[in-house]
Amino acid sequence: MDNAMQPEDTPELRALYKGFEKAHLNPLWTQTGNLMPLHPTSDAVPHVWRWKDLLPLAERSGELVPVGRGGERRAIGLANPGLGGKAYVSPTLWCAVQYLCPGENAPEHRHSQNAFRFVVEGEGVWTVVNGDPVRMSRGDLLLTPGWNFHGHHNVATEPMAWIDGLDIPFSRQNDVGFFEFGAERVTDNATPRFSQGERLWAHPGLRPLSRLEDTVSSPLAAFRWEHTDHALTEQLLLEDEGQPATYSMGHAGLRFVNPTTGGDVMPTIRCQFHRLRAGAQSRKRRDVGSSVFQVFSGRGAVLLDGVEHKLDTGDIFVVPSWVSWQLQAETGFDLFHFSDAPIMERLHFDRTTFVEDDA
Amino acid sequence: MDNAMQPEDTPELRALYKGFEKAHLNPLWTQTGNLMPLHPTSDAVPHVWRWKDLLPLAERSGELVPVGRGGERRAIGLANPGLGGKAYVSPTLWCAVQYLCPGENAPEHRHSQNAFRFVVEGEGVWTVVNGDPVRMSRGDLLLTPGWNFHGHHNVATEPMAWIDGLDIPFSRQNDVGFFEFGAERVTDNATPRFSQGERLWAHPGLRPLSRLEDTVSSPLAAFRWEHTDHALTEQLLLEDEGQPATYSMGHAGLRFVNPTTGGDVMPTIRCQFHRLRAGAQSRKRRDVGSSVFQVFSGRGAVLLDGVEHKLDTGDIFVVPSWVSWQLQAETGFDLFHFSDAPIMERLHFDRTTFVEDDA
Amino acid sequence: MDNAMQPEDTPELRALYKGFEKAHLNPLWTQTGNLMPLHPTSDAVPHVWRWKDLLPLAERSGELVPVGRGGERRAIGLANPGLGGKAYVSPTLWCAVQYLCPGENAPEHRHSQNAFRFVVEGEGVWTVVNGDPVRMSRGDLLLTPGWNFHGHHNVATEPMAWIDGLDIPFSRQNDVGFFEFGAERVTDNATPRFSQGERLWAHPGLRPLSRLEDTVSSPLAAFRWEHTDHALTEQLLLEDEGQPATYSMGHAGLRFVNPTTGGDVMPTIRCQFHRLRAGAQSRKRRDVGSSVFQVFSGRGAVLLDGVEHKLDTGDIFVVPSWVSWQLQAETGFDLFHFSDAPIMERLHFDRTTFVEDDA
Amino acid sequence: MDNAMQPEDTPELRALYKGFEKAHLNPLWTQTGNLMPLHPTSDAVPHVWRWKDLLPLAERSGELVPVGRGGERRAIGLANPGLGGKAYVSPTLWCAVQYLCPGENAPEHRHSQNAFRFVVEGEGVWTVVNGDPVRMSRGDLLLTPGWNFHGHHNVATEPMAWIDGLDIPFSRQNDVGFFEFGAERVTDNATPRFSQGERLWAHPGLRPLSRLEDTVSSPLAAFRWEHTDHALTEQLLLEDEGQPATYSMGHAGLRFVNPTTGGDVMPTIRCQFHRLRAGAQSRKRRDVGSSVFQVFSGRGAVLLDGVEHKLDTGDIFVVPSWVSWQLQAETGFDLFHFSDAPIMERLHFDRTTFVEDDA
Repeated sequence: MDNAMQPEDTPELRALYKGFEKAHLNPLWTQTGNLMPLHPTSDAVPHVWRWKDLLPLAERSGELVPVGRGGERRAIGLANPGLGGKAYVSPTLWCAVQYLCPGENAPEHRHSQNAFRFVVEGEGVWTVVNGDPVRMSRGDLLLTPGWNFHGHHNVATEPMAWIDGLDIPFSRQNDVGFFEFGAERVTDNATPRFSQGERLWAHPGLRPLSRLEDTVSSPLAAFRWEHTDHALTEQLLLEDEGQPATYSMGHAGLRFVNPTTGGDVMPTIRCQFHRLRAGAQSRKRRDVGSSVFQVFSGRGAVLLDGVEHKLDTGDIFVVPSWVSWQLQAETGFDLFHFSDAPIMERLHFDRTTFVEDDA
Repeated sequence: MDNAMQPEDTPELRALYKGFEKAHLNPLWTQTGNLMPLHPTSDAVPHVWRWKDLLPLAERSGELVPVGRGGERRAIGLANPGLGGKAYVSPTLWCAVQYLCPGENAPEHRHSQNAFRFVVEGEGVWTVVNGDPVRMSRGDLLLTPGWNFHGHHNVATEPMAWIDGLDIPFSRQNDVGFFEFGAERVTDNATPRFSQGERLWAHPGLRPLSRLEDTVSSPLAAFRWEHTDHALTEQLLLEDEGQPATYSMGHAGLRFVNPTTGGDVMPTIRCQFHRLRAGAQSRKRRDVGSSVFQVFSGRGAVLLDGVEHKLDTGDIFVVPSWVSWQLQAETGFDLFHFSDAPIMERLHFDRTTFVEDDA
Repeated sequence: MDNAMQPEDTPELRALYKGFEKAHLNPLWTQTGNLMPLHPTSDAVPHVWRWKDLLPLAERSGELVPVGRGGERRAIGLANPGLGGKAYVSPTLWCAVQYLCPGENAPEHRHSQNAFRFVVEGEGVWTVVNGDPVRMSRGDLLLTPGWNFHGHHNVATEPMAWIDGLDIPFSRQNDVGFFEFGAERVTDNATPRFSQGERLWAHPGLRPLSRLEDTVSSPLAAFRWEHTDHALTEQLLLEDEGQPATYSMGHAGLRFVNPTTGGDVMPTIRCQFHRLRAGAQSRKRRDVGSSVFQVFSGRGAVLLDGVEHKLDTGDIFVVPSWVSWQLQAETGFDLFHFSDAPIMERLHFDRTTFVEDDA
Repeated sequence: MDNAMQPEDTPELRALYKGFEKAHLNPLWTQTGNLMPLHPTSDAVPHVWRWKDLLPLAERSGELVPVGRGGERRAIGLANPGLGGKAYVSPTLWCAVQYLCPGENAPEHRHSQNAFRFVVEGEGVWTVVNGDPVRMSRGDLLLTPGWNFHGHHNVATEPMAWIDGLDIPFSRQNDVGFFEFGAERVTDNATPRFSQGERLWAHPGLRPLSRLEDTVSSPLAAFRWEHTDHALTEQLLLEDEGQPATYSMGHAGLRFVNPTTGGDVMPTIRCQFHRLRAGAQSRKRRDVGSSVFQVFSGRGAVLLDGVEHKLDTGDIFVVPSWVSWQLQAETGFDLFHFSDAPIMERLHFDRTTFVEDDA
């Protein structure tokens, strides 16, 4: 690039630039490379947070910080080291560890931001979503799509920790968020095994005649571990039988979907689950958009732009846009995965490249 | 209507009409009322076929008629009395009782016509759809969408009967059908409890990463009674708890759907299931398009254009377009239901009216 | 085919068949070939109607038959010779020549059936669609989508003839039609050059902010010859310049579309226009579904299943489902074309094959 | 809000917060209000840039800054005063004045970012989009959707200025952008009156048979002033005749759309045009998402959150998310308008409120 366009530094030019500044203007020719890079070049960096670091800090917060109105949630956001200390795990996504002690109530509120919870261990909390109490147990994915009232309460004798995922950074950056306070405590203290949403919707291929209108987000708001586990198990068994069921060799995968459309559970967040056989690896790839993974069980590693990071249960890592990633399983290896892919696809910015070995 | 337009019968007019005939022409003004009625006025008539009549005739066919290539299926079509003896249950739909003796094979073929089977009683047959053996048991709905190879074989010691539903009349009338012969006998004699399709797809809200392309018809081709029954039971329990879950008071209902889209299982045929509490009745309504119901269990009645027909298990009835219908349950009352509603909706001809009591 | 299934004719079999008849049943095995042919085999036949035959009969009707309430329209339907004298040009489509004398009024009505008019010659009639008077001139395509009130009146000093296309056979066969009488005479006698619909919508790529809801049928109801001619001319000029603009070499083509969706103008009827250079021919093809063409100008021929039919201005021909067709231009050759393709595509029955020379 | 959750400042808490920092964590409870405000509260501020300020600075740039490879474009970005000096007119949108002297060439490149140009005055530049030269004249809207090569050259004897709109800030923030350099000079020096795209697509309701696949962005890339002006004129005439054609009383409006879908011209940017009669005003409203307007002709004002800003031809203003806006026309008043509304709608964050008078 010859930069033919960069003019000589003269008093006249400096006067022009001063005029720009005064008039709230800023020329493109001094900043093209930064504004319009050859490929996505995120300020966010690949990073791994260790569960063995996260959990003690969450526990200590449980001792020191009350939960209640104002702060709303005892949630500790993962702050991407490249994003200046903001609690953004990526430019679009928020990921936090939330911690709730026995008997505690996280007050009800609602917001435009889409949210989910994923439970890496523990049980005993119910989240009440628009009046429907939803049990939270190990391996479950629970949704609170935008503008649904929700609060949580812990009815067990042990504290509970889980991760929250939201589109807070996207929402903040693009000025789309509304927020409303609800009841100080959850409005229904029942602790049913299954939520009303599940009782209506968690039947494969069956849709209630009372619910024929498609919805923006999934009306099924609890995806139970027993189903997830069963579906992944079957994919690997089918692969054993020679059927084309897995995503790639030794790599089972599924996407959580809205049963009214077959599409993503929420308009901005994709949720998926991966299971690799011991010794297997996923195909190396780059995607436009950012992803966050949490190891649900097993041991292995991830290669992020060619750098290996060992992983253990509970560890969380972020893959910024266009950073290559590949999962490698030492033992059987289960990972929960969420991303901003629906944003990319709906705006037609999505691109994926499969990468041959860097060696 | 004053029929201002009907001209006097003169030799000149007769000559004109003769000219029309010779030139393969036919004036609108002599036939408007028939061609364009004020509301749908079907040649098809409401009719009930009794299971106690159907089953013995099917059994007798099992004794007298071999099953094999050419005739292809031992299927006995319900012929709407208004449609001139054609084996059409309605102008768009085909409904037949199929009967297969122990050890028999119905040879493989495929066709553009969309098909399903619903099992009112019995078990022991597997239908092999594109190489995937699918068990057929009581209460199950099994799909063979257009252009999938399929054959059936009975591995039990008892004969089995079920109903087939297809869009044969629509296909024949509109000249859309292709047909291809396959193997003389089913290509896979395995009798697995669950088909590959179920193992991949029958997990609520979970979609395999290997199957992200939407499909025209449902890739889940077996809808098991245990799920159907469970979903209906939950709707009535939720109603008991004051939740808005049923279709109308005492009337649970669900639609079988394509999990890739949340829409109908096939492009031309809708499949649904109704359960009424003892003493309940459905709302009286008229719809554009035709429907067929089979009583799965229980006793009750249907009002068709105000005429009551008593119903018992296995009985089948047809509701032609714009005929009013209302279900009435004497005992708990379960009915399978299929219709051409997807045709009507996709072409924007659908209309439904809820009718107040005719009295 | 060995017809393994056809049983021996015995008294027992005859008793069974008698039992079927009494119970309104009809076995599949005696009729498979007819019900489910190897490929679409229409009762409708390819046929050409000559304008030189049609126009005199229409004129004679103008002398002998009044126009008015009851018969509604002085429309003479083309009756496919294969369809038993019914005024069906194909199993799905209606095509009629309509004739209106100076000063005559065709009364207002509305119906579910979708309709259009195409003007092969003449002018002087306005059709009033939901109160919006629409001029009808040579080469124009005018829509009256389902359930819009419409009437016509001739304000000129000459009679006018045009063709009507509707989905009457489809509507009649599938029992979807509603009909309602309106005013005895058109409700607005104005004769504006452009309809309100055109003034709002006939601006390329521009959509009124007052009309952001998509509509089932095109809100633009008049497609003027000057635009059609211009678009076709440009395609051939671009082809001359080496640009990929034509449908095939020497064959320009366009589809009339709903500007709110870019899709077909009505849910059941596709309208297109073809222009071939002198000496050019279209690719030989077969399609599922039926088509009707009218020569707008020029001379040439059509090959229908390999049989050549010479064509002149105004001639109309029908192509039943899966009959091969190829246009051949002697002079520059313009043809209007309508079909039931939207039905086939929406129900996923569409198939097209391009055929190599039969020789 | 009682802020029940804010814990007392103790050494233990400070140790915890230090632990958070070290582990790249950041608690939600200290920042909820900022991250999740009650309604969108943009850092961007409402602002007006005056054409009488912009044009002289652009002209001076023409004298001092060469145009060429590296800087790529002599484009001067409008920098929202609330966004820290970045050349972002809003958090999602870029708006710049581009200036090209006689004989100059802006080199070819392509990028994921979607772009358009709108010409407030002048002519003589052709933009070459994927090899198709597109004339730029007063009042025209010209598209270069993502990943199309494009360059510009001025063949006139006068410089020319216009505005560019892009989704650069959105693209930069969400890490979606790719960029590729093309030819140093435009690849086709022809200066046709109409582009190939227009010759194929600028025919109302007519779609080429060679282009039946829908496209993400509009294949019609030039929207000419004569059509825009005509469509707006007709809306006001129809209003005069009592027809429901305008957006609100005295306020005509239209949206530029993709003719293959009827939807927005590009996946991230909406383009519209408003015309108000002298003395008319638009309805006061708030929208989620940001908008930019340029006065094309006439004089009037805009109320932004209740503050009146007088406006003259060429003036540009930005409306950040949830800021109320109302146009007021002194003379007949024409404004070009672009926004990020497609982003908001596709992600279901869109909301609009019509506001009663603040007084």
